[in-house]
Amino acid sequence: MTQVTVWNEFRHERHDNTVAEVYPEGIHIVIADALSEAGFETQTATLDEPDHGLTEAVLDDTDVLTWWGHAAHDAVGEEIVDRVCERVREGMGLIVLHSGHYSKPFTRLMGSSCSLKWREAAETERLWVIEPGHPIADGVDEYIELDDAEMYGERFDIPAPDTLVFTSWFEGGEVFRSGCCYRRGNGRIFYFRPGHETYPIYHDESIQQVIANAVAWAAPGDGPTPNFGNNESIEAIDGSDDRTVH
Amino acid sequence: MTQVTVWNEFRHERHDNTVAEVYPEGIHIVIADALSEAGFETQTATLDEPDHGLTEAVLDDTDVLTWWGHAAHDAVGEEIVDRVCERVREGMGLIVLHSGHYSKPFTRLMGSSCSLKWREAAETERLWVIEPGHPIADGVDEYIELDDAEMYGERFDIPAPDTLVFTSWFEGGEVFRSGCCYRRGNGRIFYFRPGHETYPIYHDESIQQVIANAVAWAAPGDGPTPNFGNNESIEAIDGSDDRTVH
Amino acid sequence: MTQVTVWNEFRHERHDNTVAEVYPEGIHIVIADALSEAGFETQTATLDEPDHGLTEAVLDDTDVLTWWGHAAHDAVGEEIVDRVCERVREGMGLIVLHSGHYSKPFTRLMGSSCSLKWREAAETERLWVIEPGHPIADGVDEYIELDDAEMYGERFDIPAPDTLVFTSWFEGGEVFRSGCCYRRGNGRIFYFRPGHETYPIYHDESIQQVIANAVAWAAPGDGPTPNFGNNESIEAIDGSDDRTVH
Amino acid sequence: MTQVTVWNEFRHERHDNTVAEVYPEGIHIVIADALSEAGFETQTATLDEPDHGLTEAVLDDTDVLTWWGHAAHDAVGEEIVDRVCERVREGMGLIVLHSGHYSKPFTRLMGSSCSLKWREAAETERLWVIEPGHPIADGVDEYIELDDAEMYGERFDIPAPDTLVFTSWFEGGEVFRSGCCYRRGNGRIFYFRPGHETYPIYHDESIQQVIANAVAWAAPGDGPTPNFGNNESIEAIDGSDDRTVH
Repeated sequence: MTQVTVWNEFRHERHDNTVAEVYPEGIHIVIADALSEAGFETQTATLDEPDHGLTEAVLDDTDVLTWWGHAAHDAVGEEIVDRVCERVREGMGLIVLHSGHYSKPFTRLMGSSCSLKWREAAETERLWVIEPGHPIADGVDEYIELDDAEMYGERFDIPAPDTLVFTSWFEGGEVFRSGCCYRRGNGRIFYFRPGHETYPIYHDESIQQVIANAVAWAAPGDGPTPNFGNNESIEAIDGSDDRTVH
Repeated sequence: MTQVTVWNEFRHERHDNTVAEVYPEGIHIVIADALSEAGFETQTATLDEPDHGLTEAVLDDTDVLTWWGHAAHDAVGEEIVDRVCERVREGMGLIVLHSGHYSKPFTRLMGSSCSLKWREAAETERLWVIEPGHPIADGVDEYIELDDAEMYGERFDIPAPDTLVFTSWFEGGEVFRSGCCYRRGNGRIFYFRPGHETYPIYHDESIQQVIANAVAWAAPGDGPTPNFGNNESIEAIDGSDDRTVH
Repeated sequence: MTQVTVWNEFRHERHDNTVAEVYPEGIHIVIADALSEAGFETQTATLDEPDHGLTEAVLDDTDVLTWWGHAAHDAVGEEIVDRVCERVREGMGLIVLHSGHYSKPFTRLMGSSCSLKWREAAETERLWVIEPGHPIADGVDEYIELDDAEMYGERFDIPAPDTLVFTSWFEGGEVFRSGCCYRRGNGRIFYFRPGHETYPIYHDESIQQVIANAVAWAAPGDGPTPNFGNNESIEAIDGSDDRTVH
Repeated sequence: MTQVTVWNEFRHERHDNTVAEVYPEGIHIVIADALSEAGFETQTATLDEPDHGLTEAVLDDTDVLTWWGHAAHDAVGEEIVDRVCERVREGMGLIVLHSGHYSKPFTRLMGSSCSLKWREAAETERLWVIEPGHPIADGVDEYIELDDAEMYGERFDIPAPDTLVFTSWFEGGEVFRSGCCYRRGNGRIFYFRPGHETYPIYHDESIQQVIANAVAWAAPGDGPTPNFGNNESIEAIDGSDDRTVH
């Protein structure tokens, strides 16, 4: 059974009444509950726990990590960032949500600034499915409509995704690549745009469906673990066994 | 000097007064004039000429072919379609414009239906630059705005582009991958969405700039012409010359 | 349960003793048996059956179609080719094997010549895993070695794959993109190089594993079926309901 | 005229007689001379200069930076790495050569380990052109053969390239994606495998041709400089000007 760790910065919810009304127990609880209901084994971790809740032991029990952060990206320690990125390269899935675009793990795995345009105007967003044949679009209509969304607009400074699953339309005139698949090392990464601390977006069933699909897609497989480094000892191919190995 | 052949169906302009007012001499003349001014050597070809104007001799003098068709895709003969596709695979550039998404050369080179949603509502379109570092975006602002456009919406049933340069936003609620790069054989293909027979879109300077950029990008290079078929005669590699060649 | 139809030209095996010794009942039986053992529900279809065994009823019961053809590509009727391509665009998976690179369904879905270099010299092939994090590489070592293989070499005239899972090394000096993923419409396509009528390659367990992985990957999902065409009736977005719809 | 800065670690050549015999003035001088002859304006910079020769003033005069490093990647200061990566995102081209796969700028821009297999056995390498229609393959044969090369083998732990131009075959049994295009921000990056301090590979005319092609391809264009951040002030779209901007 796929094990998911739902990570949340979990500060807005404790210090801001508007946010607390939407997510009284924290964004992570709403996401974890939805994923449990979808059949995953879930645990949560938050910034202000020791090791931000992401000890080696917790990550040993994590097939897929979801990440929501916003105001305290800098408070995430370098050691934990290295640990998370290393796990991704070893095969752990990573689902990066909304303002997590600026998180240390995501920007480091992308190698780009991950900057974008934004506007808080409670405007309509439509997430159009661009690749209906991709498993992350399973069970979704041609588009998901959100009545009140924060706008994120292009240019989104990311590497071109391996697969672009969703593109968002915003009432105010912008578009955004809002569902992006990547591989880094043996691990799979999905960036998914929707979500904001003051809009109840993670309560939306279609959004929950996409996150569950993404977790299933990002779960580690059983492919080979590459050997790196000096490869002198490879079994000789006929005809090349007479070469001089320095 | 790069030689461009501007192909046009050229029927709307001769039979429909509304279109004739916008393009009295035909869409091809407006595009060819813009490309001449941009420094390319241009000629035109239209559906009702012999061989649709695309004789072997004309194609011998064509580095890049631009294609606009709409109502008479089926009138394009199979032999000419084969000829065009073959030239593309040999290295000729192909720029497919607007309703050319349903043309025989484009659908055949894509291998997909190239279907889409559309609506004629004279609504606002914004073409956002998704890849500002791509040469087809040279000299363009962050977006190009067209006041009155026909809407094209996703799902656009194309193979995922090698590079996605533009994505369009439409007032009515849709998005569209409106600038898409592909390679087929040695040839480069660019699909560019804007343009409609009753809106003066090919008179727009930014649109002309993009088409000129695309022509420059799609012009054939000097890469190797692959040899295909039985490769018995390849020069032996040390150590493998003792193999039995059947 | 995923239903697989294993298609085979099935002529070499009936007319050539050398082939019959390796595949006495036909290549399709060996592949179908391996897929049954891997847990798929399988049926077979061959060229000389009515409709080449690919009636609408058979395709109604097909989630994934595997295709092996070599000497008789031209004998496959246009109507059946259209039917297969249409099913792929609707979501059916397609696994194209070895000399199927020149089959009508594959070349039509690719839009390119799919030409390559080849040599029959019973030379060593190594299929290196390029994307160890892709599900088609599950359970496979860093490379699969085949002692006696027909060589296929680059330039392989295909569109750049969406994902390149394997690249082959050949003793005689060539390389080849031997495991290539594509999407067309809602369907997933995997081209897999190994296999030849006179080498027992489909008896190899690693090769069987990859084909089974590919079938699982290509099985249709539950994504949206796009609506194409005139989209006047889309529910109005706030603020755009005053537009004139022609 | 495109301005190139050729960066070299330049330590092997000064401390190792074998290397000094192949590159008496340093690898950078051989590369810079070849690029000058190809028509570029060149300068050089090396590790042991102040700021590693990469001051803001030098980078102001740099359209494309080429990078060769091997034994002293860690000696490159963080500030200079940040500076180089920032320039790439702003549009500067970057050509990373051979053992530069492990350099700080490259690994940081890729977001992956960039690990690989290697073997020093003076074996034959063939660089096959995979995309003959790409400008980096201009003027090159179907493959470039190097008699004595260090082997680099897959798995090469990089993000899947936007375009794969070359794949190498090695006598000992490995393959390698040896010519890889990427974009990061507005900048273009090309990784090119050949080159080793004890083999005269940068004296090879075909290799020089590819590096010159890559410089031409990577030179910055004139695309838009994206605006990032709060986008409240965007000109209102008809129908959305009544939204509440927070």
